[in-house]
Amino acid sequence: MNTAKRAAQLLSTQNIRSLFESVEAFLFDCDGVIWKGDKLIDGVSQTLDWLRSKGKKLVFVTNNSLKSRIQYAKKFHSLGISVAEDEIFSSSFAAAMYLKVNNFPQEKKVYVIGGEGILEELQLAGYTGLGGPEDGEKRVELKPNSPFEHDKSVGAVVVGIDPRINYYKLQYGTLCIRENPGCLFIATNRDAVGHMTDLQEWPGAGSMVAAMCGSTEREPIVVGKPSTFMMDFLLQKFHINTSKMCMVGDRLDTDILFGQNAGCKTLLVLSGVTTQTTLRDPSNSVQPDYYTSQVSDLLHLLGP
Amino acid sequence: MNTAKRAAQLLSTQNIRSLFESVEAFLFDCDGVIWKGDKLIDGVSQTLDWLRSKGKKLVFVTNNSLKSRIQYAKKFHSLGISVAEDEIFSSSFAAAMYLKVNNFPQEKKVYVIGGEGILEELQLAGYTGLGGPEDGEKRVELKPNSPFEHDKSVGAVVVGIDPRINYYKLQYGTLCIRENPGCLFIATNRDAVGHMTDLQEWPGAGSMVAAMCGSTEREPIVVGKPSTFMMDFLLQKFHINTSKMCMVGDRLDTDILFGQNAGCKTLLVLSGVTTQTTLRDPSNSVQPDYYTSQVSDLLHLLGP
Repeated sequence: MNTAKRAAQLLSTQNIRSLFESVEAFLFDCDGVIWKGDKLIDGVSQTLDWLRSKGKKLVFVTNNSLKSRIQYAKKFHSLGISVAEDEIFSSSFAAAMYLKVNNFPQEKKVYVIGGEGILEELQLAGYTGLGGPEDGEKRVELKPNSPFEHDKSVGAVVVGIDPRINYYKLQYGTLCIRENPGCLFIATNRDAVGHMTDLQEWPGAGSMVAAMCGSTEREPIVVGKPSTFMMDFLLQKFHINTSKMCMVGDRLDTDILFGQNAGCKTLLVLSGVTTQTTLRDPSNSVQPDYYTSQVSDLLHLLGP
Repeated sequence: MNTAKRAAQLLSTQNIRSLFESVEAFLFDCDGVIWKGDKLIDGVSQTLDWLRSKGKKLVFVTNNSLKSRIQYAKKFHSLGISVAEDEIFSSSFAAAMYLKVNNFPQEKKVYVIGGEGILEELQLAGYTGLGGPEDGEKRVELKPNSPFEHDKSVGAVVVGIDPRINYYKLQYGTLCIRENPGCLFIATNRDAVGHMTDLQEWPGAGSMVAAMCGSTEREPIVVGKPSTFMMDFLLQKFHINTSKMCMVGDRLDTDILFGQNAGCKTLLVLSGVTTQTTLRDPSNSVQPDYYTSQVSDLLHLLGP
């Protein structure tokens, strides 16, 4: 892809108009773009309002699986931003949809290493989820003649970011994948780190997914970015050619790669995990079309 | 190496004598070879006694870092086997020795994701360890304006198997590796699973190490098998040419590879994590010289 080879352009008054005019929908990542933890990034609210007033469609594509679409809509509202549930494409939703489009049997269960959001999306899709936050306090007993039991009807293990990761869950998921015939291993995403709080990055789903790869010696199916699995659902709703979409994100290996894989224009913001040094490093092979400090630059460079 | 290409021979009355006569020291893995969890494997005690009575040196090389050498000697004694502390080469000891031979400064600290054994070996080597079991009950708070603090004087993170793995430890270790300049990332080993109890396999250090690779996007220095780092210490004690050693283990990718990397003869036992099907699978490229069901076959095939 040519876009991957040309160095990213700094977004400026010179080049922003052609981007803006050619784009009908802006796809935003959330962590490090819209907010950090529970803190809105400066100027985001005004920028989103202004984009809507100019007729642009807004879509939110997040790899963070801790919440469901409904819960994300509530989070947006609590931060003063009006977003509809079906404008949100979270990796928790993607995991449930992956099972649905692959005709995963309703009578099989799904073991979850991750947050409430995955369990909620599974339930909305008609599936029975096990594990999740509930197993966060469980302890293992490593003693003789005391087998660790797991449910033989689990047909898929979904792994996402899990701040309550423990040995119980690792053993449960590992036994399902290794011993239940045909059991699927699905990763919501593989982000190394993410802005779980405003001040710091924390281990992302990439850490929990790798832990499960380490014990199972298997590779997962990834449904979140940079996989374009979610794009089909997005196209069903918006009917906009991907060349008229612009993916705005803070991660090169997920957001920007997702945008490029899908044929979108791409804009990197430096308000999250990626620095300009990383972007310019010779070892980095992912170049967005444009980069800028933060989302509000769209408004400042173009707005009234 | 030729040994890696020729299919393993089943140990038999035909071939055992030449192996036995050419070997001065038997190197045994522990989990899945000597014991499973806290249960001795049948016939092990008599076999070890008999080998000693025939003048063979015995060495125990374990990737399990939960215990120190002193603690392992106690475990052997509690199971009725007399083993001296300096006949034991554990990956917990190897981690401390790695720091020592690389002149790791005494004033720097070491953060431990793993068991008591690593902390004890660090202390015996004169280092200050942090973390370990003590951090197993710690919780993280993902809230605004609440930074997660880590010790800036940590110069190495040692990761081993950790049945008390949690998000606190993952974040602590990740911050040290990502933010403390020059911080080392040391893995005791990368075993996918191990016999933590007699009845089952459980996620091994490979799971915790992978989790840290996932969040730090770094690869560790591995000091346990199949790395031959421990062999130097073993040679210092025994002064036996490695061609006169036989490594006996249950894992192809650690034990047998370690033996082959060091130039030892190799014997796979099927009493642990490897089945004959795995050994014979075309995808398996690691072939020991010999294989047999369990350690006591040595006695049964050769003994009185």
